[in-house]
Amino acid sequence: MADAYIINTLFTLFAMTLIIFMVPGFAMLEAGIVRTKNVTSVLTVNIMIYVVASISFILIGFQIAFGDIQISTMNPLAFIMFQMAFVGKAINIMSGGVGERAKIFPLTLFTVIMGALIYPFVVNISWGGDILKDTVLDLNMHDLAGSTVIHSTGGWALLAAILIIGSRKGRYVNDQIKVIPASNIPLVTLGALLLWIGWFGFNGGSVGNIASKEAADTVALTIFNTNTAGLAGALTAGIFIYLRYKLFDITMILNGALGGLVAITAGADLYDTLNSLIIGGIGGILVVIAVPLFDKVRIDDPVGALSVHLINGIWGTFAVGLFAGNETITLMGQIKGIAIIGISVFAVSYAIIYAINKIMAFRASDDAQLEGLDASECGIESYPEFRRTI
Amino acid sequence: MADAYIINTLFTLFAMTLIIFMVPGFAMLEAGIVRTKNVTSVLTVNIMIYVVASISFILIGFQIAFGDIQISTMNPLAFIMFQMAFVGKAINIMSGGVGERAKIFPLTLFTVIMGALIYPFVVNISWGGDILKDTVLDLNMHDLAGSTVIHSTGGWALLAAILIIGSRKGRYVNDQIKVIPASNIPLVTLGALLLWIGWFGFNGGSVGNIASKEAADTVALTIFNTNTAGLAGALTAGIFIYLRYKLFDITMILNGALGGLVAITAGADLYDTLNSLIIGGIGGILVVIAVPLFDKVRIDDPVGALSVHLINGIWGTFAVGLFAGNETITLMGQIKGIAIIGISVFAVSYAIIYAINKIMAFRASDDAQLEGLDASECGIESYPEFRRTI
Amino acid sequence: MADAYIINTLFTLFAMTLIIFMVPGFAMLEAGIVRTKNVTSVLTVNIMIYVVASISFILIGFQIAFGDIQISTMNPLAFIMFQMAFVGKAINIMSGGVGERAKIFPLTLFTVIMGALIYPFVVNISWGGDILKDTVLDLNMHDLAGSTVIHSTGGWALLAAILIIGSRKGRYVNDQIKVIPASNIPLVTLGALLLWIGWFGFNGGSVGNIASKEAADTVALTIFNTNTAGLAGALTAGIFIYLRYKLFDITMILNGALGGLVAITAGADLYDTLNSLIIGGIGGILVVIAVPLFDKVRIDDPVGALSVHLINGIWGTFAVGLFAGNETITLMGQIKGIAIIGISVFAVSYAIIYAINKIMAFRASDDAQLEGLDASECGIESYPEFRRTI
Repeated sequence: MADAYIINTLFTLFAMTLIIFMVPGFAMLEAGIVRTKNVTSVLTVNIMIYVVASISFILIGFQIAFGDIQISTMNPLAFIMFQMAFVGKAINIMSGGVGERAKIFPLTLFTVIMGALIYPFVVNISWGGDILKDTVLDLNMHDLAGSTVIHSTGGWALLAAILIIGSRKGRYVNDQIKVIPASNIPLVTLGALLLWIGWFGFNGGSVGNIASKEAADTVALTIFNTNTAGLAGALTAGIFIYLRYKLFDITMILNGALGGLVAITAGADLYDTLNSLIIGGIGGILVVIAVPLFDKVRIDDPVGALSVHLINGIWGTFAVGLFAGNETITLMGQIKGIAIIGISVFAVSYAIIYAINKIMAFRASDDAQLEGLDASECGIESYPEFRRTI
Repeated sequence: MADAYIINTLFTLFAMTLIIFMVPGFAMLEAGIVRTKNVTSVLTVNIMIYVVASISFILIGFQIAFGDIQISTMNPLAFIMFQMAFVGKAINIMSGGVGERAKIFPLTLFTVIMGALIYPFVVNISWGGDILKDTVLDLNMHDLAGSTVIHSTGGWALLAAILIIGSRKGRYVNDQIKVIPASNIPLVTLGALLLWIGWFGFNGGSVGNIASKEAADTVALTIFNTNTAGLAGALTAGIFIYLRYKLFDITMILNGALGGLVAITAGADLYDTLNSLIIGGIGGILVVIAVPLFDKVRIDDPVGALSVHLINGIWGTFAVGLFAGNETITLMGQIKGIAIIGISVFAVSYAIIYAINKIMAFRASDDAQLEGLDASECGIESYPEFRRTI
Repeated sequence: MADAYIINTLFTLFAMTLIIFMVPGFAMLEAGIVRTKNVTSVLTVNIMIYVVASISFILIGFQIAFGDIQISTMNPLAFIMFQMAFVGKAINIMSGGVGERAKIFPLTLFTVIMGALIYPFVVNISWGGDILKDTVLDLNMHDLAGSTVIHSTGGWALLAAILIIGSRKGRYVNDQIKVIPASNIPLVTLGALLLWIGWFGFNGGSVGNIASKEAADTVALTIFNTNTAGLAGALTAGIFIYLRYKLFDITMILNGALGGLVAITAGADLYDTLNSLIIGGIGGILVVIAVPLFDKVRIDDPVGALSVHLINGIWGTFAVGLFAGNETITLMGQIKGIAIIGISVFAVSYAIIYAINKIMAFRASDDAQLEGLDASECGIESYPEFRRTI
C-alpha cells in the first residue's frame, strides 16, 4: 500500500511537470502566431493566466470541483497540483482566440471567474463531487482527460468572447479576408511540440494510478494512443493541404496534430492503435476544414482555437461513444455531456464577458490595435532592436 | 530496501533532469534580456559555465563538499550528478549580472575556482562534511535547496564582481540612467518558465528521499509550495507595477516569479499554502523595489540578479526562522548562516576576481562594448540576417 | 514482479518523453543554423519526419526490427513507443545534412522507407530478431544506444544523399568555400541543449531495466557517463578553437558536445568517469577536425552532421572495444559491426535515393534555392515581419 502511494505520487508529479511544459508551449505558440506588435501582450496574458487561474483554483476552485473527496491513492497535494495544472489550459484556449484585440485586465478578471467557478463547476459534474447526481441532468460521459471538460469548455468560452469582442480591426473589410501571417514560425513549432509533449502528462496522468500491472498498462496505452492520434492528425492535415495546394503548410500540420491530440483526449485509455489513427486523423481533417469555415462566418480566431479545441473536443467526446461504446458508455451519454457542458459554459461565459465588457471595454481601441497592444497594454516592445516591415 | 534504493535513484535522476532544463532556462532568459550585439557571447558564457563548472565539481568540488559521505539511499552517481546540476546555477547568477561587459576567458577562470572550491566550501559547511563542526562558526541553518547556498552565494559573488568590473559603458552618464530594453521578450519568457519548471526538481529533489509515505508527502509539499510561491511572486510584482504605471510589465512579473521561487527555496518543505503565498508574494515585491534601488547606487545588473537571487536568498533564509521556527530552527541560526556564508563568499570572490582582473582585464574595452562582445569575443553574430535598429 | 513491471514501465515512459524533447531539439538546432529563407522548410521536414517515420515504424518497422519478441519486463506499448522515439533521430541526422536544397516530398518518401525498412533492419541485426544469427555475418557488437545503429546509420544515409543531391547552390565557387553563418544562435543553443537532455533518456532508457539495485546502478552510470562525455566534448572543441583563433565559437562548442554524446552512446554503461572524459573529449576534437575536412572534399553539410554523427558514431563504437574489451566484447566485433552496417546502409540508401531522384528531382532548382525553399516548398515565410539583410 505504501508502495502504491509512493509510486503514484511520483508518477503524478512527473505528469504534472509535463503539463506545466504546456505553459511555455501555449506561450511560444501564440507568440509565434501573432504579429510582432502584439507579442509581448500575448505572452503577458499567458503568464497572467497561469498565475491567476492557478491561485484561484487552489484557493477556491478545487474545493468546488472536488469538495471533500478522499484521495488515498497518492499525496493529496500532488493531486491538487495536477488538477491545478489543467485549469489554465482551458483559459489559454479562450485567450489565444481573442488575441490581438482583447485587453489584459478584463481577460485577467475573466480568468479569476473561470478558474474559481466556471471550470471547477464543469469538473464537479464530470469528474468530481457531482452536484447533478440523482437529477435528470446527471452526466454519464466518459471524458478521460477533458476533450469536453477542458477543450470544449475553453472553446465555448472563446466563442462567447468572440461574439462579444468582435474580430480584429482590419481583418474583414468589404467581403475581403485579410490574411495575417504568423510572425515567427520557429516559435510556433516549438510551442506546438511542447504542447504535444505536455499531452503525455495530461492524458497519461489522468489515468490517476500506475501502481498495478493493469494500471501501468492503461497508462502506457493512453500515452501511446495520445501520441498516435497526434501523428495521424498531423499527417491527414498535411496531406489534405498538399493535395490542394502542392505546398507543405506547417501551421496546418501542427494544428492538425493538436486537433488529433484534442480528439483522442476523451478516450485515449480505451482505443487500439487503429482507432487512434482514425480518430486523430479525422481530427486533423476537421481542423483544415473548420479554419476557413469560421472565417467565412466572420468569426476571427487568430490561432485556430475553435477548430482545434472546440470542434475536436466535441468530436473526441462523440468518438468515445462511437468507437468504445458498451453498457456504461453510450453515444447518448456522450452527447448529453457535450450538450449540457456546452450550453452551460457558453451561457455563463457569455453573461460574464458581457458584464465585464459593460464595466470596462474588453476590446482594445482601433488605434491601440493599429499600433499594437504591446504599446498600450505593456509598454514593452517584443523585439525592439529588429527592424520591421510593418 | 532495494525498492527504496531503486525509486530514490529514479526520482533523483528525474529531479536532476529537471534542473538541467535550467541550463537552457538561464541561457534563453539572458539571451533575451541583453542587446542583440551581446547575445552570442552571453550564450557562450552559459554553455562554458555548465561545462567547466560541472567538470570542476565532478573532479574536485564534490570531494570538498561531501568528503567520504556514505550514500546508501540511492545510487551515488545519481546523487553526485544531482549535486553537480546545482553548481553551475550559482555561477549563472553571477555571470548574468555582469553581462554585456565581462570577458569570457576570465569568467571561465573564475568558474573553475567557484566550481572546484568556493561553492563546494559553502556546501560543505551547510549540507556536507562540515569542517566548521564543533567550532563557534558551526552553522545551524535550515536551507533546503539553497536560498543561501546557491542564490545568495551567486549573488554575493556577483556583487563583488560588479564592484570590480563596473557598469556597462554608457549605462550611467551624468546622473542619467540609460534604460536598455530586453531585445527578445519571447526568449525571456521561455527562459523564465524553464527555470520555473527546473525549480520543481531543484527543491523537490533536495528532499533526497521519496521512498516512504512521509518522504513522498514532503516531496509533494515541497513542489507544491515552490510553485505556489512562484505564482505569488509573479502576482504581487504584477499588481505593484500595474498600480504604479497602469501597464503590465512582463519582465517584472517574471522576475517577481523568480524572486518568489528563490524565497521559498530555503524552507519549501516546511510551510503551508498560506505561508508560501506570503513568502513568495513578499519575494515578488522585494524584486520590484530592489531593481531601481540598485540602479540608484549605480550597481549595474542587466538581468536583475541581485534583486532576484541575493535579496530573496537572504529573505528566504530569514523567512524560515520567521515562519517555521522551532527548537532546532531559530531566527538567529538562520541569520548566522546568512552572515557567515555572505561574508566569506563575498570576501573570497572579491579577492579572486580582483586577482584575475590584475592578470587579465575582466572588463571588455569601451570599443568592444560599443561594438558588442559577440564580435570581439566570439566572432559570431547572433542574428546576422536581421536588420537592426541599433 | 508486478513492482518491476510497474517501475520499468514508468521509467521507460520517462525516458521516452525525454527523447521526444529531441524533436524540438533537432528542429530548433536546424532552424537556427540554416538561412532565414529556409527555416520554415527545415522545420516542416523535422515535423514530417517525426510523423511519417513514427507511423511507418509503428505499423511496419517494429515488426521487422523485433518480430515476435516477448517483452515481459515492462508494458509492451511503452517499449514500442520508446523504440519509435529513436527512428526519427536517424532520419533527422540525414535530413539536416541535406538542408537548404533537398525537397520535402522526396525526403518524406525516403523517410517512409527508412522508418519502415532500413532502420528496422539495422535494429534487427543489432538489438532485435537477428536474421543474421548463425551466419558468418552475425554481429557481435556492443552498441548500447546506437552510436552505430542510430548515428552512423543516419550518417551513412546522409553521405549517400549528399553524393547524389550535391552541395547547396553557391556554396563552392571557383575553389572558394562560401561561409554561411547560422541565422539564429539562440535557437541553435536551445536545440543543442534539448538534444543533450534528450540523450539522458536515449542512453539511460536503453539499459531497459531499472528494477533491481544492479539495474538502477547501470542506469545512473549510463546517464552520468553520457553527460560527462558531452561536457568533455564541448570543452575540447572549445579549447581547440580558442587556441587557434582566440575566439569562443559556440557552434563548435555545441557540436563538440554533441560529438561527445554520440561517441559515448555505444558504451555509456561500461565506462568509468575518466574513460568518459577521454572518449567524449576525443569526440569533440574529431568534430572540429572533421568539419573543415568535409568542406575540403566539397561535401556540403550545413549542420556538421557527418562530423558529429558519422565520425563519432564510428569512433564511439570502436571505443567500446578499446576501453571496455573483454571476452565477449572485442575490437574485431565492434569493427565488424561498424563495417557491415556501414556498407549495407550506405549501399541501400544510395540505391533508394538514386531511384527516388530518378522519379522526382530530390534537389530544389537553383532558382528555388536562391529564393529559399520556404517560398517554393511551403509558401510560408519564417519571419515575415523582420527586415532582412539578404
